[in-house]
Amino acid sequence: MKKTGTADALPVKIIPLGGLEQIGMNITAFECADSIIVVDCGLGFPEDDMYGVDLVIPDVSYLEENIDRVKGFVITHGHEDHIGALPYVLRKVNVPVYATRLTIGIIEHKLEEHNLLDVTTRKVVNFGQTITLGDFHVEFIRTNHSITDSAALAIYTPQGILVHTGDFKVDYTPIYGDAIDLQRFGELGKRGVLALMCDSTNAERTGITPSESTVGLAFNNIFEANRNRRIIVATFASNVDRVQQIINTACRYGRKCVIEGRSMVNIINTAIELQYLNVPDNTLIELDEIKNYPDEQTVIITTGSQGERLAALSRMANGTHKKIVLGPRDAVLFSSHPIPGNEKAVTKIINEIFRKGADVIFQDAHVSGHACQEEIKLIYALTRPKYAIPVHGEYKHLKAQAKIAEQMGVEKENIFLIQSGDVLEIKNERVQRNGHVQSGMVFVDGLGVGDVGNVVLRDRQRLAQDGIILITFAMDPDNRVVSEMEIVTRGFVYVKEADELLEDIHMLVGDTIMEFREKDSPGGRPKLKNNIREAVGDFVWNRTKRRPMVLPVILDIE
Amino acid sequence: MKKTGTADALPVKIIPLGGLEQIGMNITAFECADSIIVVDCGLGFPEDDMYGVDLVIPDVSYLEENIDRVKGFVITHGHEDHIGALPYVLRKVNVPVYATRLTIGIIEHKLEEHNLLDVTTRKVVNFGQTITLGDFHVEFIRTNHSITDSAALAIYTPQGILVHTGDFKVDYTPIYGDAIDLQRFGELGKRGVLALMCDSTNAERTGITPSESTVGLAFNNIFEANRNRRIIVATFASNVDRVQQIINTACRYGRKCVIEGRSMVNIINTAIELQYLNVPDNTLIELDEIKNYPDEQTVIITTGSQGERLAALSRMANGTHKKIVLGPRDAVLFSSHPIPGNEKAVTKIINEIFRKGADVIFQDAHVSGHACQEEIKLIYALTRPKYAIPVHGEYKHLKAQAKIAEQMGVEKENIFLIQSGDVLEIKNERVQRNGHVQSGMVFVDGLGVGDVGNVVLRDRQRLAQDGIILITFAMDPDNRVVSEMEIVTRGFVYVKEADELLEDIHMLVGDTIMEFREKDSPGGRPKLKNNIREAVGDFVWNRTKRRPMVLPVILDIE
Repeated sequence: MKKTGTADALPVKIIPLGGLEQIGMNITAFECADSIIVVDCGLGFPEDDMYGVDLVIPDVSYLEENIDRVKGFVITHGHEDHIGALPYVLRKVNVPVYATRLTIGIIEHKLEEHNLLDVTTRKVVNFGQTITLGDFHVEFIRTNHSITDSAALAIYTPQGILVHTGDFKVDYTPIYGDAIDLQRFGELGKRGVLALMCDSTNAERTGITPSESTVGLAFNNIFEANRNRRIIVATFASNVDRVQQIINTACRYGRKCVIEGRSMVNIINTAIELQYLNVPDNTLIELDEIKNYPDEQTVIITTGSQGERLAALSRMANGTHKKIVLGPRDAVLFSSHPIPGNEKAVTKIINEIFRKGADVIFQDAHVSGHACQEEIKLIYALTRPKYAIPVHGEYKHLKAQAKIAEQMGVEKENIFLIQSGDVLEIKNERVQRNGHVQSGMVFVDGLGVGDVGNVVLRDRQRLAQDGIILITFAMDPDNRVVSEMEIVTRGFVYVKEADELLEDIHMLVGDTIMEFREKDSPGGRPKLKNNIREAVGDFVWNRTKRRPMVLPVILDIE
Repeated sequence: MKKTGTADALPVKIIPLGGLEQIGMNITAFECADSIIVVDCGLGFPEDDMYGVDLVIPDVSYLEENIDRVKGFVITHGHEDHIGALPYVLRKVNVPVYATRLTIGIIEHKLEEHNLLDVTTRKVVNFGQTITLGDFHVEFIRTNHSITDSAALAIYTPQGILVHTGDFKVDYTPIYGDAIDLQRFGELGKRGVLALMCDSTNAERTGITPSESTVGLAFNNIFEANRNRRIIVATFASNVDRVQQIINTACRYGRKCVIEGRSMVNIINTAIELQYLNVPDNTLIELDEIKNYPDEQTVIITTGSQGERLAALSRMANGTHKKIVLGPRDAVLFSSHPIPGNEKAVTKIINEIFRKGADVIFQDAHVSGHACQEEIKLIYALTRPKYAIPVHGEYKHLKAQAKIAEQMGVEKENIFLIQSGDVLEIKNERVQRNGHVQSGMVFVDGLGVGDVGNVVLRDRQRLAQDGIILITFAMDPDNRVVSEMEIVTRGFVYVKEADELLEDIHMLVGDTIMEFREKDSPGGRPKLKNNIREAVGDFVWNRTKRRPMVLPVILDIE
């Protein structure tokens, strides 16, 4: 490795492949000569108009094209938006995965589900440890977040030190482990940080995010006020510390706990195995055992706090849960805030729970896992970066952090608001934009990865909006119709009440065919189909102000 | 009319036909012997999975069946969720419409657009005035809300006085007109209120809703801080008082105002005409004139604060507005909060505006138009109703008001949480549930009213999720295939990359036909179609984990 900071030091590139247009799908490549390392490999969730799409993963063509240089994935923490695409991406870019212990535990469970455990190399890294990946050295620094064992990264490059915070908050009184290693951020700052890539999620919010431990106090009050009821707490499957606090409170009030919901069971089991969760003996019981205890001696900890349609809470609310029936003796606590976009789904469930006669509590039993403005300022104050590259957020979040960076003394022209695919090049310790690589979203629908693209999505949107009119008949080589004409619609109008309309379409298609034959049009079948599509489309629009898809299919008969 | 409250007084029914499952579609019938009056006639907005539906209106079959008894619509205020269904419902139930002056003005504009002005009777009612409609007397009482001229109703019935608040808040310093007539609520209470039907929208929120005039102070600060920029304010089209305050602030800072967005132009014109808006000369200019003034001397007041895709603000954000181009010299102020469900759409627009280089301000330049808990308590304290029937809200809102009612001394069994279609009967001054009438949603899609129902919607949902596979061939009377088989898909897979899958489907259908012929199945064509549907459906599910609609069409050839 050439000496850091000299004029002939190797240039370094930063290439985000996701995570800058939305919250989710975080993945960023760092490149130096023959070495590429990839920080995080997350999935995204489909937008409302991405009909039928289950998951969104990043387009990693750039990594595939440069696979010989890719040294490994460095994962900051175990949330889906940072690890969720690994099972898909590792099939194409099979390199070692580096992360802290709990994060590796969660990843391993995921790989096992995808039958990839045997073919993937995983390496546990401790906080304070530095790993070498080609021309890069990467140090893991302890942070706090809504999942234990989250790390920031100090990436040592020939051009200088890059600090990537991962997702973080400053929690002086965390539930598990120590507070964020602010001293190390300070040391790095003293030594000189070239660029800071900091979490923007809460950059619009003033003040600080309260400690996770404050939620425990809220639990106390809620358990106290609901001594005579069964308590059901819905929270994020991966928030091990939250579950710890629920268990602690349950113990204090002499209650048994049930964990319900597949994703939560998985993560909690991993956490117990790796001793990130401290569960007193005889506290956790199986769901089937709950009937052996009176309501006021049990707590059900469950997934579904975001209104996810298939999650356990949703099934309870809708009365379709096989083993849990909600009623007036239940208090359901949301230990969560709705993620933007989920508000309506959450409200729907709350209404249903109320209808069952249960009480719903959505008071302050939640704190965010992301740093607010004062915490972000603290990291800037400690690291004093020359360049700021806000990450993890929509444009408005990045913009909000840009303002903070400026306030904290970063030169305006040294703040880079970039998009996925943008290439930032660092040369002579100067950061500048330099080109663009392929990036984007790949849709996962059922077993298909990438076979649903924009064409299919546009068709789905059109079908969703106004349905389809299918027009079928058979023709002989002389363009004579030799069958009945079948007109079938789906999602357009209620057929039993649209006889007249369909009759008119029938006649219109007949006229269109006739006209086509008379003109003996040279365009052939494609031209005839087009004529039908246009004629029927216009007619239907005028009559209904709808634009169903019109699909003529002409069968050839010898 | 028999004497109120005597044992032989005529019974009264309260029949909500909408508004109790969601915020929107408010409409309630009150019935006594040969008289039916209808309070409000609003529309609702489609849920996310009601694909292609433009509007939702109430099913008024019950009114149609009893049309001879319906005396009129009594409208509390001019918001879409209280008047929007009138143009559709009046076609079937053409009775006079009673409302305050601005409300009638807004309704008339709407009727004009639907060519219904000539055939509809409208009557302006003043605050304090009582109208007689059959066995009912209805008094209009002044309230405050986010639209001027909002009224509560005292409905005098043979069974006693029912008070319906409409949508309201308590504003001691409103922009136009007087504060809510609390004295009258008190007088009615003294006299004896049988039942209170009170707005539940903000019943979950503690404290009070601040006065509309507080928003003016926020405008001052924002205009002061943006002296050198063009200011664009997005707000609700119908909030005349808000527009008044923007105009006032603009005048103070020497700026000209443009109103942009069709719905806002309509309402503001009506408000100016009826003198609900006081605009100094030479303040309003046309959009085309804006180029004659420097940026810092103009304000654009616009629709689209909820992220509506076709509204003016959305077009500005996306760069498709014909006359307004956003740039770094613009400050865009959201004088609104996102209505639940619109958060993502609003965020999308904010991101786009930031990308254009403009600044976005979403600090406290908005107050709600609905009463919070302390205001609701005040109305209970003044009216002291025997019965409480919370209205205007989802179940959780009604439930929250029920708690307040109980706190305010209403007996628990005298609080009725009802659903649309429920009949409450009042007999001997006692309220009780008594049956159910038809109610529900009618979908408006394009020009069609009611022709999209659950069957069509389910098809659209299915088509949206996984698309369609269409299988067509021709058969002779002996069940011999006499044409090529055409397999066409839309919204399922990207066909160019799914050759093999389609080939397999082709063969599968061939086998299915063959088997059908061999078995010489008695079910005929419907049975064959069904076999194909099942075989292809199962095959596709196993291969892709998707469930596209499978549509076999068999043409008959002689």
